[in-house]
Amino acid sequence: MSLSFDELLHQRRKQIENELDALLIRRPGLPEELLAAMRYSLLAPGKRLRPLLVLLAHEACGSSGAPPWPAACAVEMVHVYSLIHDDLPAMDDDDLRRGQPTCHKKFSEATAILAGDALLTMAFEVLADAYPGATAAACCGDLARAAGAAGMVGGQADDLAWERSTESTHRSLADLEFLHQRKTGALIRSCLRLGAHVAYANQPTGRAPQDLLDCFDQYGRCLGLAFQITDDLLDAVGTVQSTGKAVGKDAARGKLTYPGLLGVEESRRRAELLGEEARAALKPFGQQAASLERLIDFVLTRDH
Amino acid sequence: MSLSFDELLHQRRKQIENELDALLIRRPGLPEELLAAMRYSLLAPGKRLRPLLVLLAHEACGSSGAPPWPAACAVEMVHVYSLIHDDLPAMDDDDLRRGQPTCHKKFSEATAILAGDALLTMAFEVLADAYPGATAAACCGDLARAAGAAGMVGGQADDLAWERSTESTHRSLADLEFLHQRKTGALIRSCLRLGAHVAYANQPTGRAPQDLLDCFDQYGRCLGLAFQITDDLLDAVGTVQSTGKAVGKDAARGKLTYPGLLGVEESRRRAELLGEEARAALKPFGQQAASLERLIDFVLTRDH
Repeated sequence: MSLSFDELLHQRRKQIENELDALLIRRPGLPEELLAAMRYSLLAPGKRLRPLLVLLAHEACGSSGAPPWPAACAVEMVHVYSLIHDDLPAMDDDDLRRGQPTCHKKFSEATAILAGDALLTMAFEVLADAYPGATAAACCGDLARAAGAAGMVGGQADDLAWERSTESTHRSLADLEFLHQRKTGALIRSCLRLGAHVAYANQPTGRAPQDLLDCFDQYGRCLGLAFQITDDLLDAVGTVQSTGKAVGKDAARGKLTYPGLLGVEESRRRAELLGEEARAALKPFGQQAASLERLIDFVLTRDH
Repeated sequence: MSLSFDELLHQRRKQIENELDALLIRRPGLPEELLAAMRYSLLAPGKRLRPLLVLLAHEACGSSGAPPWPAACAVEMVHVYSLIHDDLPAMDDDDLRRGQPTCHKKFSEATAILAGDALLTMAFEVLADAYPGATAAACCGDLARAAGAAGMVGGQADDLAWERSTESTHRSLADLEFLHQRKTGALIRSCLRLGAHVAYANQPTGRAPQDLLDCFDQYGRCLGLAFQITDDLLDAVGTVQSTGKAVGKDAARGKLTYPGLLGVEESRRRAELLGEEARAALKPFGQQAASLERLIDFVLTRDH
């Protein structure tokens, strides 16, 4: 049964990658190197956690409304843009990502900045074109809120500021979680919201009801933090081979992490607890949320 | 009468700046330096040509539908993000913009990258939240198409690639205009489209009819190229005082420009001709397009 869930994820990932590939092939007249850089980063092997969340949230809402694929592609574009920009020399200055040279190493810094800009922009184009007005607007609004200054970009700004200040050792667990709620959590929550909106595309409002969004927000909040804890643990105790990127960098940079703040064992316990909370938030969806529920274990036990 | 049009533009600019200011004040919890950088670049004195185009296109369509201010703010956010990223060391490497240090000079490269990302993202949030579904979706789609890889970002990528190749002297007028149609023209055209969509926000389709968009596309195409010619002429014959940025940089970089390709006099004649074409495209709108018509002279005779 566990194998069959792995197979399902594998199959969905392939479909997502085919859809992403198709969106970036049917585009004549784009500058060659720009398109190559966009494809290089977007199609590099990845977990595809965010688009999977769109698909599984859509499924938890009964797989009704419109197809979830464009929304799944849009969130992956936003995620990959953020990786490209975060890896830049002026930001985290990383050479390796998803097991291959980072975009600015493979191409150039200018091309990496522009490829990121183009992917972010394209996410909104895909949403606006794929869905009926009200659904497209709800998706664009939620995605922009999650990705912007109050969400992902703001989290990255604070992360850089903390790393460069001398006070990082005085930060609390609340500070750390406020950071991650924006840096990675906001986009993760928005994936669930988008999957839900799309499932209501044929309803008069064209968007998911609030009580359902609240459940997803709670699930996403817990899953996002659990995901971040395992990310920190992988950097602390993982290997380059399994993670496909440099490890031990957090400690070397004096970055605030869960293992650094709570220790490895307590971090693992906290991830487990968050997993339980995430599970509880899915109750109202019943059996339709079975895949979202199994995804919790996938996130907690991942090795890359 | 010419004075009164200048006064109108001045007044509209003030209103635009008040609206931009308000959008970036009502945002609690943003990282301090990030917000400061966004405000610094967005509120620096500017011509506000793009938001003015939104307002005047809305007026040409009868000032009906919904208020044009959110759309006007959104296009200025996209424009300013593009200036911030284009000025980065890895791109055009400029120290001066709108008469003051560029964003990365005033803050840091990381903050400038993130401030640009945040402004681009916020443009879509503003559109999605301000308008009814169909209108918001039409605006998000048109703006993303104009700003993305097939538009502005693609134009900037080609501009950089040409500048860094040794073949720039072999480019033709057609090459130059294809570049500008994307680098500056696409966003200018989208301003007119957004103003038009907003004017139809209360209609069943929620978006402007195609024949009207075609007229605006023609007007915007001509105005955008005329604008670019005067930009090139200002760099060739203007002063730092009048333009608020370094001049003579195009020639020093061996950049392909109108004066470089056609000479100063022929460039001026071409701008005049494009002005005539732009005027002709406004015919169907009659007296309601009076301000858009007067804007042509403003663009042709500007000194900064």
